[in-house]
Amino acid sequence: MTSICWYDNAFLPEEEVRISPYDRGYNFGDGIYEVFRVYGGRLFEAEAHFERLRLSAEGLKLALPWGIEGLRAAMSELVERNALSEGTVYLQITRGVAPRNHLFPAGAAPVALAYTREVARPVQAMDQGISAITLEDIRWLHCNYKTLNLLANVLAKQEAAERGAADAVLHRNSTVTESSASNVMIVKDGVLVTHPANNLILHGVTRAVTLRLARAAEIPAEERPFSLDELYGADEAFVTGTTVEITPIVSVDGRKIGDGRPGPLTRRLQREFSAAIGLEQ
Amino acid sequence: MTSICWYDNAFLPEEEVRISPYDRGYNFGDGIYEVFRVYGGRLFEAEAHFERLRLSAEGLKLALPWGIEGLRAAMSELVERNALSEGTVYLQITRGVAPRNHLFPAGAAPVALAYTREVARPVQAMDQGISAITLEDIRWLHCNYKTLNLLANVLAKQEAAERGAADAVLHRNSTVTESSASNVMIVKDGVLVTHPANNLILHGVTRAVTLRLARAAEIPAEERPFSLDELYGADEAFVTGTTVEITPIVSVDGRKIGDGRPGPLTRRLQREFSAAIGLEQ
Repeated sequence: MTSICWYDNAFLPEEEVRISPYDRGYNFGDGIYEVFRVYGGRLFEAEAHFERLRLSAEGLKLALPWGIEGLRAAMSELVERNALSEGTVYLQITRGVAPRNHLFPAGAAPVALAYTREVARPVQAMDQGISAITLEDIRWLHCNYKTLNLLANVLAKQEAAERGAADAVLHRNSTVTESSASNVMIVKDGVLVTHPANNLILHGVTRAVTLRLARAAEIPAEERPFSLDELYGADEAFVTGTTVEITPIVSVDGRKIGDGRPGPLTRRLQREFSAAIGLEQ
Repeated sequence: MTSICWYDNAFLPEEEVRISPYDRGYNFGDGIYEVFRVYGGRLFEAEAHFERLRLSAEGLKLALPWGIEGLRAAMSELVERNALSEGTVYLQITRGVAPRNHLFPAGAAPVALAYTREVARPVQAMDQGISAITLEDIRWLHCNYKTLNLLANVLAKQEAAERGAADAVLHRNSTVTESSASNVMIVKDGVLVTHPANNLILHGVTRAVTLRLARAAEIPAEERPFSLDELYGADEAFVTGTTVEITPIVSVDGRKIGDGRPGPLTRRLQREFSAAIGLEQ
């Protein structure tokens, strides 16, 4: 079946989408994006994703002429047109098409592109856990904006793969920030710890859901910086993200986390998460 | 006259260039670029630009299937086909087209796009100088790679314009790095000072030419970090860049540099630069 995209305010077959070479997304990475999870044909945590999109747009002084309501309607229609049940919606918005110049173009209209993908839950990784390496976090200082400037993330993920790991945990001067494309949480003595939602990390929607589930389950949680040594010495560790959900980290830099298997608190949060999305694990 | 682009290994009218929505340049800013200056129909300092392109590609582990020689031949032919005498050649190379995934795609071919523009020398700014503001340098830690992740530069340039200045001088913890799209040099007591060519700045081709001209003119030059206070208290200051050449900075944050007019050493280097490109100023 041909996939339908939403591009430049129209629904059209993906092979008909052609981007201008002068799109600022292509020349500067001047744009923002979101990846929405679809479960049972519905956008999961849509509100939170659209609010983050709004904040990213504000950070980049990028106008959203559709309004959040217009974008929400378009994304819902896109899911319907593609009859998507379980998967993702990718939406990116650039500052538009204009002769190359760093300055914001006068009168250019933002360009939105969205498409859907069928994506299954990563059940094996969620069950068995993943290994990670650690790398210096070399990104810019507005990691809270979800932008198309993703080179540092790309290079980190690639280095992890080349070194036989599934992901890279990033740190600034030994303070763990997040991983190449998801947030990182550790458990020590029954307490959940994750980096505060400031300018150094992306404010993950699944991160927020997980903290909410922990609160509901009366699991103590602290949003504070933690060190690489705390990660190495943690009882449990996991990443949270829109497609990885809650995936255990069972080893870091070749060292086992806890006993090298997903821990009980991680398992509990996974079950709570499955319940939250209306599924049995 | 229709402008001819070089795209995907062919010369074609610019209106026929259409980028894939799955080009990694569009989704991740996963690519590199160069802006070449053309004087008298010839690429100025071509060797230095191609060497930097090679280093940027190496930094991003991006293959250049054309080889530097193939790229050089294509750029020369592009200049000829557009009968360009004075202007610029823009060349960008992305990692290619592939389903969105942070990991490098297996088997994707890099995509190159190049076009020319007629651009005159910025004689008024070079003659009268520009004003600048200062901003915190929030970029990533590989500023020596010339990549398509340019959001921090875009936002800095835009903020300068909104505050009535021509450019923004960037600093990390009060150490001046460079400006939004060019290098910064100061003169104090007859000595030229500019930030060392490490990972915190782009290694400007015009920066290198200027240092070479200074050496030839027996002007003492130091490549060392200097502070915002040194900038404010400098006798002269200027930016260097491919299109701005050597442009004086006559005020920073509303404070005059020296007597608020382009200084004698700046003037001398401008004359040397004009001679180097085979023109009288």
